[in-house]
Amino acid sequence: MSPMNRQVRLAARPVGLPKRSDWNFTDEAIPALKAGEILVKVTHLSLDPAMRGWMNEGKSYIRPVGIGEVMRAGAAGEVAATMNPDFAVGDPVAGNFGVQQYAVSDGKGVRKVDTRFAPLSTYLGVLGMPGMTAYFGLLDIGKPKAGETVVVSGAAGAVGAAVGQIAKIKGCRVIGIAGGADKCRYLIDTLKFDAAIDYKNEDVKAGLKQHCPDGIHVYFDNVGGDILEAALARIALHARIVICGAISQYNNTAPPKGPANYLSLLVNRASMTGMVVFDYASRYGEAARDMAQWIKEGKLAAKEDVVQGGIDAFPETLLKLFKGENFGKLVLAL
Amino acid sequence: MSPMNRQVRLAARPVGLPKRSDWNFTDEAIPALKAGEILVKVTHLSLDPAMRGWMNEGKSYIRPVGIGEVMRAGAAGEVAATMNPDFAVGDPVAGNFGVQQYAVSDGKGVRKVDTRFAPLSTYLGVLGMPGMTAYFGLLDIGKPKAGETVVVSGAAGAVGAAVGQIAKIKGCRVIGIAGGADKCRYLIDTLKFDAAIDYKNEDVKAGLKQHCPDGIHVYFDNVGGDILEAALARIALHARIVICGAISQYNNTAPPKGPANYLSLLVNRASMTGMVVFDYASRYGEAARDMAQWIKEGKLAAKEDVVQGGIDAFPETLLKLFKGENFGKLVLAL
Repeated sequence: MSPMNRQVRLAARPVGLPKRSDWNFTDEAIPALKAGEILVKVTHLSLDPAMRGWMNEGKSYIRPVGIGEVMRAGAAGEVAATMNPDFAVGDPVAGNFGVQQYAVSDGKGVRKVDTRFAPLSTYLGVLGMPGMTAYFGLLDIGKPKAGETVVVSGAAGAVGAAVGQIAKIKGCRVIGIAGGADKCRYLIDTLKFDAAIDYKNEDVKAGLKQHCPDGIHVYFDNVGGDILEAALARIALHARIVICGAISQYNNTAPPKGPANYLSLLVNRASMTGMVVFDYASRYGEAARDMAQWIKEGKLAAKEDVVQGGIDAFPETLLKLFKGENFGKLVLAL
Repeated sequence: MSPMNRQVRLAARPVGLPKRSDWNFTDEAIPALKAGEILVKVTHLSLDPAMRGWMNEGKSYIRPVGIGEVMRAGAAGEVAATMNPDFAVGDPVAGNFGVQQYAVSDGKGVRKVDTRFAPLSTYLGVLGMPGMTAYFGLLDIGKPKAGETVVVSGAAGAVGAAVGQIAKIKGCRVIGIAGGADKCRYLIDTLKFDAAIDYKNEDVKAGLKQHCPDGIHVYFDNVGGDILEAALARIALHARIVICGAISQYNNTAPPKGPANYLSLLVNRASMTGMVVFDYASRYGEAARDMAQWIKEGKLAAKEDVVQGGIDAFPETLLKLFKGENFGKLVLAL
């Protein structure tokens, strides 16, 4: 008898933090492969802040996950069966496989990865979407120049940690904002940031004033809310703000808070620009080459927070992101 | 006996709308000219929304006017006496002369203008700072392409009217937002905008939805507040928002309202960029040539709201801006 495929489907659109009842677990037989298809046994699920947005109705940069559909997720695993000459059984792969134990794919958008170079989970982190987001958001939108001051929020997360390290590689001073002394110590000791601000225990405005005496040239925002406002208050002339996310706002049930001091953009002739990583798909190769090289040279470290929970732990594990409990790229091992 | 110079000085930093008691009127003798100086008899004062910002304390794009100082203002007039070989008595000139009847200047930043081509007041409007602001803000930051939809707020004001007309010259569809049926009729009948939305009597969101079926490609913002939010809700992919001003917020005594839906920048990979016209000083000539040519060709009209009030009417006349009572470029004739 062939194994069943356990799947997590969206049962309801969450109000605030997703509850267990917003999810449905289903078990279904794995269908027979058609010509050109592969079957992937998913071993690692990528848990990302963006998932919260995909659960909402309404126009966004990507179609919302429909009620009853398998939840969208980046994932990695290995080819378990193949009717596609480009893939062999046992190939390690990454792709948009969804929150399920097995995925059938025609191979489009599936990337073969090299597990001799880095473990599968890394292809969901610094060598995956978060890494690409950091690379293109920082370099293409932020355009940091050597000697400039770069501030990144959510700095101990998958995207933030990569942003800060790439900015260091480019010769910038880097200040990270993260929650808790452990994360801040990690930013300085392991990732070699120049300074860290613990937003849970420090006054972010005062910290930015102390660590950015000449203002902030590039602010990479993953969190929104009060921290965005504190950064806006401290930007330098011609600063570039990269709007990558706003995790502090995703589970709001009240209307979100806009940055009351957005006119700092005018005073400082600065810009605030939104980015979505999928726009750079045609250039992922370029980023992956650079990132792999930096990993080899020991300039880019990647902490992964791999939860050994299995698929049933998906709902609770996802919440770690919104509580700031993850430390590095959050991955659920199936 | 030489005439006295009546001056308006900042007496106190206003809270909310400037009150009469925030101003001091002084009369002083005109000093003797030194070598290189000119005396300008000021005939026209430029009243601009930005003046409100100059009255506040704190870091901004320009030094605040100090308590007791003559209020900063763009102005035009004619040379009444000269010790500078570059200027002759009777030369019509424009410059930063301040709110006073006579100004002594070393000639730096003073522009000789051609009153055969256009009246002095026009050099405070479309051929002056508001025109330059519109030109560089729209073309350099907004980067409109033919066929795109451009929306401008404060559209019947000095900057807004120029923005819309330049956008038309560049082949765009133009929607103006202004207060009142008269102004909206003027935008369509005289300035040939494609549509106008009367924010005092219409739902701006609904109007933008109706008139911008493919979204807004360039939004030029002079007003901030709810109208900025309505525009953000309607931007197209890769839209450019030019932050030129926020007249709805300048007299707030409560903290200003930030755009709660700024994440529309992310969803639409759009940018919001602040601009200050002074940054383009080295390129004013380029703009002035284009603008003069467009005026000659009948493509650029400039309505001026010239108040014949004399200097004593300065405090009340300035308030017309913040009540939306001016119709075109607000000028006070002395």
